Amino acid sequence: MTTSKEKTAAKTAPGKDDSPDKKTTGLTVKKPEDFSEWYTQVVQKADLADYTSVSGCMVFKPYSYAIWEKIQQLLDAKFKQLGVKNAYFPLFIPESLFKKEAEHVEGFTPEVAWVTHAGDTKLDERLAIRPTSETIMYESFSKWIRSWRDLPMLINQWCNVVRWEFKYPKPFIRTREFLWQEGHTVHETAKQADDMVMAILNIYNEIAEQSLAIAVQSGRKSEQEKFAGALYTTTIEALMPDGKALQMGTSHQLGQNFAKAFGISFLGKDGKHQMPWQTSWGMSTRVIGALIMAHGDDKGLVLPPNIAPVQVVIVPILFEDSKKEVLAVAEKIKQQLQKENVTVEVDDRETYTAGWKFNEWELKGVPLRIELGPRDLQGKQAVLFRRDTAAKETVKLDGVAAAAKKMLGEIQQSLYNKSRQQLENGIAPAKSVTEVAAAVKNKKLAKAYFCGSAKCEAEVKEKADGANSRCMTLDDEEKKGKCVVCGKEGVVTYFGKSY
Amino acid sequence: MTTSKEKTAAKTAPGKDDSPDKKTTGLTVKKPEDFSEWYTQVVQKADLADYTSVSGCMVFKPYSYAIWEKIQQLLDAKFKQLGVKNAYFPLFIPESLFKKEAEHVEGFTPEVAWVTHAGDTKLDERLAIRPTSETIMYESFSKWIRSWRDLPMLINQWCNVVRWEFKYPKPFIRTREFLWQEGHTVHETAKQADDMVMAILNIYNEIAEQSLAIAVQSGRKSEQEKFAGALYTTTIEALMPDGKALQMGTSHQLGQNFAKAFGISFLGKDGKHQMPWQTSWGMSTRVIGALIMAHGDDKGLVLPPNIAPVQVVIVPILFEDSKKEVLAVAEKIKQQLQKENVTVEVDDRETYTAGWKFNEWELKGVPLRIELGPRDLQGKQAVLFRRDTAAKETVKLDGVAAAAKKMLGEIQQSLYNKSRQQLENGIAPAKSVTEVAAAVKNKKLAKAYFCGSAKCEAEVKEKADGANSRCMTLDDEEKKGKCVVCGKEGVVTYFGKSY
Repeated sequence: MTTSKEKTAAKTAPGKDDSPDKKTTGLTVKKPEDFSEWYTQVVQKADLADYTSVSGCMVFKPYSYAIWEKIQQLLDAKFKQLGVKNAYFPLFIPESLFKKEAEHVEGFTPEVAWVTHAGDTKLDERLAIRPTSETIMYESFSKWIRSWRDLPMLINQWCNVVRWEFKYPKPFIRTREFLWQEGHTVHETAKQADDMVMAILNIYNEIAEQSLAIAVQSGRKSEQEKFAGALYTTTIEALMPDGKALQMGTSHQLGQNFAKAFGISFLGKDGKHQMPWQTSWGMSTRVIGALIMAHGDDKGLVLPPNIAPVQVVIVPILFEDSKKEVLAVAEKIKQQLQKENVTVEVDDRETYTAGWKFNEWELKGVPLRIELGPRDLQGKQAVLFRRDTAAKETVKLDGVAAAAKKMLGEIQQSLYNKSRQQLENGIAPAKSVTEVAAAVKNKKLAKAYFCGSAKCEAEVKEKADGANSRCMTLDDEEKKGKCVVCGKEGVVTYFGKSY
Repeated sequence: MTTSKEKTAAKTAPGKDDSPDKKTTGLTVKKPEDFSEWYTQVVQKADLADYTSVSGCMVFKPYSYAIWEKIQQLLDAKFKQLGVKNAYFPLFIPESLFKKEAEHVEGFTPEVAWVTHAGDTKLDERLAIRPTSETIMYESFSKWIRSWRDLPMLINQWCNVVRWEFKYPKPFIRTREFLWQEGHTVHETAKQADDMVMAILNIYNEIAEQSLAIAVQSGRKSEQEKFAGALYTTTIEALMPDGKALQMGTSHQLGQNFAKAFGISFLGKDGKHQMPWQTSWGMSTRVIGALIMAHGDDKGLVLPPNIAPVQVVIVPILFEDSKKEVLAVAEKIKQQLQKENVTVEVDDRETYTAGWKFNEWELKGVPLRIELGPRDLQGKQAVLFRRDTAAKETVKLDGVAAAAKKMLGEIQQSLYNKSRQQLENGIAPAKSVTEVAAAVKNKKLAKAYFCGSAKCEAEVKEKADGANSRCMTLDDEEKKGKCVVCGKEGVVTYFGKSY
């Protein structure tokens, strides 16, 4: 319902002296043509993040941080339902403490940032900046845990961590500092720890599929790919449009490895001293990278309603003679939507044209736009614009809040269905290492039987252009078949290149 | 309403093999007798924090972190009402960037922790771990701000900061790493920045007085005491029971100092390039220290209801023959309280006696306890126990939720009134430096006219046992009088020793 008069208004650009800066102009590449450049442009132009003068570190600008806050709220509520409590442990880990668990230190040392001086003073012992907090936490756990009464101990921490990667940085996906939550639990029995690992994996799965609308494959990591120091690692993996897998969250059964290294023990109900079983698990700001890649298009970001900081934007088409009436109705719709718990903004800036605003909100991926001009008012209607499909629908004013709410639900479901379809289409069965390599070359995840050994993994990696196993399915029914490398018993496993 | 049968039950201690550990036994010192040791014991025994092997750093255990989460929610909502948006900037600041604003670098350099190595690689340039984020943020601001359209820019960040103090550490009050929020805003005019400074100071004042129930004196810092790099600093100061002042939050007008150093400018509405005005402001986890000191007593912590993670604890008195009925009623009361938005727990642990539970919840400062035994059930009543006054009240079961809710309000107000009274009693007018010194010796805040100069401040400090100016009042009416040191025009100022 855009009238020609409105079109003219939309075309009027702001004056030269105060022209909107570069970030608000559209993308100059198409997603399928240069995926990497497309990603970089979306990150910057949708105002998500910016580079800094600290190599490999970035600023989370308010828009991406607001997405992270949404994810935090959702995760935090689910953790608290399980009885997990938040705490905060030091950023620093003394070198001697950091080195207590052999596999762990081997896995993380190459990427540790070290503090050596404070003011003008050289420290007696170097301090690692936490790449993960097992070592600093478990020293405390060894003091706090005395009896079975203290178990299970269920602790989570929201914090920054530092891993000084030397690979090329990529905002959200690979930065030297990132934000995450790390959960750490201690249990009386192996079974309880196993159950905790799975309860968390299920939460990660729910967040990915129901909130981020990203279909994932869950499973277990191979020996080669598991967390340094863990008994086993479970993971959820998503498939990005460039055919690479992206790990969205991991949940580790640590067994008794750390308990042994840090001397954690408890007096059991049977009166005997025992060693507990531990888990750790984390989801990080890298999932924002997955969100961008999974749903974005040639016009910019596309956000699923369940995670969008702004779910609906109302853009009133403003003319001097009808401005007051249009803004009043826009405000009324806003209030109706807020009553339905929809996050909504009215973009009433007079220094930008409606057309310019449409482009900006599409770039920023707001799921639903409501357009409202004087002609619409006359017809007692408004126009709903779906960001994901670009479909427009004219609805009666008295039903606009209900229609918007319904459409948000449809967008959420539709984005997930599309993602599920892409994941399924992106999987190629492979009966040999050659077929694994062919699938990977074809930008797909190869689905093949695999024994899980480091030796077979190395062979796949060499022959399939650096691809590795992403996850070995946990589903019992699929647990039969001969490893495509060695022929020994294996389970269905997904191979691919990864971020 | 404790029956003799119930008293016997309360006395029965858990068996030797699973005796509750040390933290749950009561305090061994009285608050007025050894305030410092009392503080240390409350922190540890109420399960708030623990020491770590990183010198000067502590663990925020779940109970203190839950208090911090409450403070975060309250502050965050108020900031968002002002239009402030959360973001996240890097932990690291390259040395060259850190040194751009001369006064700022001088103020913070002695306490900076430096990262020099990553993995095995020596970095080209040392990285400061943020003691505060002006320098890293304003480099970005200089890129982001182009025109008046971009202003005001209102950013806040929740994060950890590191200040490597060499003084003796004290949990919450002085630790090398702490948590805080730091707000950073950019405005077109000095007036707008002044207004922002005051808006934030008012928020800090509200949180201190209405949520933490701590009476504060607000004002302006002297030249000597202001933030390194600021035009002026405003502050809220509380008086602790040992006569020391504790700074609860500061809000700085930065003027154009940083804009100059970082090259931040904007095209004004008048078409001319201008330099903006900036503010920064922060409140940290040290306010938890103030909370402990201000309200605690010989039995432990006392939390104001508005900030308590658990506002009401229901302790059912359990006997085999009536357990089921008592727990059912406890659960019903819990649900009634939850409907009234009261945070409530039922302590139904069977391995601890009621008496042991009473002591533990008093130690942890839960504002209100509801006791419920079989005799109470017969009389259709319950006993409410106020933590702050130790007063007991028997109320009818059908009115217990309403009574509890009302009592929580009374506790909140009563704690604040007590704090206000203590602050007022703790202030001694002083007409000379000698009288300032006498007041300080007497563990009071001295109230005296002061010109604000560094020279006069140094003289007070020397003669009054290290006391300094805590804040100079902003109230116009009080702004007349001769400085007790130099006789020049001064304003009413509070002097004292400080944390």
